[in-house]
Amino acid sequence: MLRVDLICIGRLKERCWQEAADEYKKRLQGYCRLTVTELPEYRLPARPDPAQIAAALEREGESILAKLPSQSYLIALCIEGQEMDSPAFSKLLSDRTVAGDSRVTLVIGGPFGLSETVKRRADFRLSFSPMTFPHRLARVMALEQLYRAFRIASGGQYHK
Amino acid sequence: MLRVDLICIGRLKERCWQEAADEYKKRLQGYCRLTVTELPEYRLPARPDPAQIAAALEREGESILAKLPSQSYLIALCIEGQEMDSPAFSKLLSDRTVAGDSRVTLVIGGPFGLSETVKRRADFRLSFSPMTFPHRLARVMALEQLYRAFRIASGGQYHK
Repeated sequence: MLRVDLICIGRLKERCWQEAADEYKKRLQGYCRLTVTELPEYRLPARPDPAQIAAALEREGESILAKLPSQSYLIALCIEGQEMDSPAFSKLLSDRTVAGDSRVTLVIGGPFGLSETVKRRADFRLSFSPMTFPHRLARVMALEQLYRAFRIASGGQYHK
Repeated sequence: MLRVDLICIGRLKERCWQEAADEYKKRLQGYCRLTVTELPEYRLPARPDPAQIAAALEREGESILAKLPSQSYLIALCIEGQEMDSPAFSKLLSDRTVAGDSRVTLVIGGPFGLSETVKRRADFRLSFSPMTFPHRLARVMALEQLYRAFRIASGGQYHK
């Protein structure tokens, strides 16, 4: 069974996101060994300047890199990444198993995304949409796509 | 103030989607006159054949068309539609106000999307992602993008 690590910045504060995430985590139990790691969000002033944002991204990036499993295929979620449809994402995960990787790590940044260091370190940069979604909603979307990917791979039906 | 009609198929059964949708509906109050209309989802057997799906889409499509305001710019959400980033979506809405349209209608289909009739009737076909998301989550995503669009247009800050 594939190990999937989801590494995220910040906590899911709102109950609605927490419940949606919990539901998909529960459903994923039958398909992979999922671990969700929440790392602290670097505090920024209300109107941060670019240097402050860059510093926050670097600090968050360092804590992400420190948590990365040594042997894992790293997928970084970023708006400028590559788009794909759900069957292709399912195949991307299945191909890792075929390639002998037993572990996939998906990272989702905070309000300002991920540091360049994390993006460069990634084996694959994935974009869900050219639209900007809140990072907490992006986490729910990622869990849903993981569940959909495993359902597709197992040939199961899944409501749209 | 722009009138925005969101016409959807099916109810938001899960509390998490309901709460997330309610939160964005509340936030949108300051920016537009929003009406959300839920139309019944046509019941299908567990493994519907293509003809059954087509019939369901036609029936759902008819109920959508019956609910369309007579003077409104119609945006249909469909996976094969045009993608755009959030500022472009914000501009699409602002441009309607400039063009003298006082009303925009966004339609989101059910598990199998929208009928061809509805898509042909649309002034714009919008895609959030090449990935398939559940239609209930798509509704939350649409409300979030509407809120983001108005925030962008008003120059306000908004967390990612």
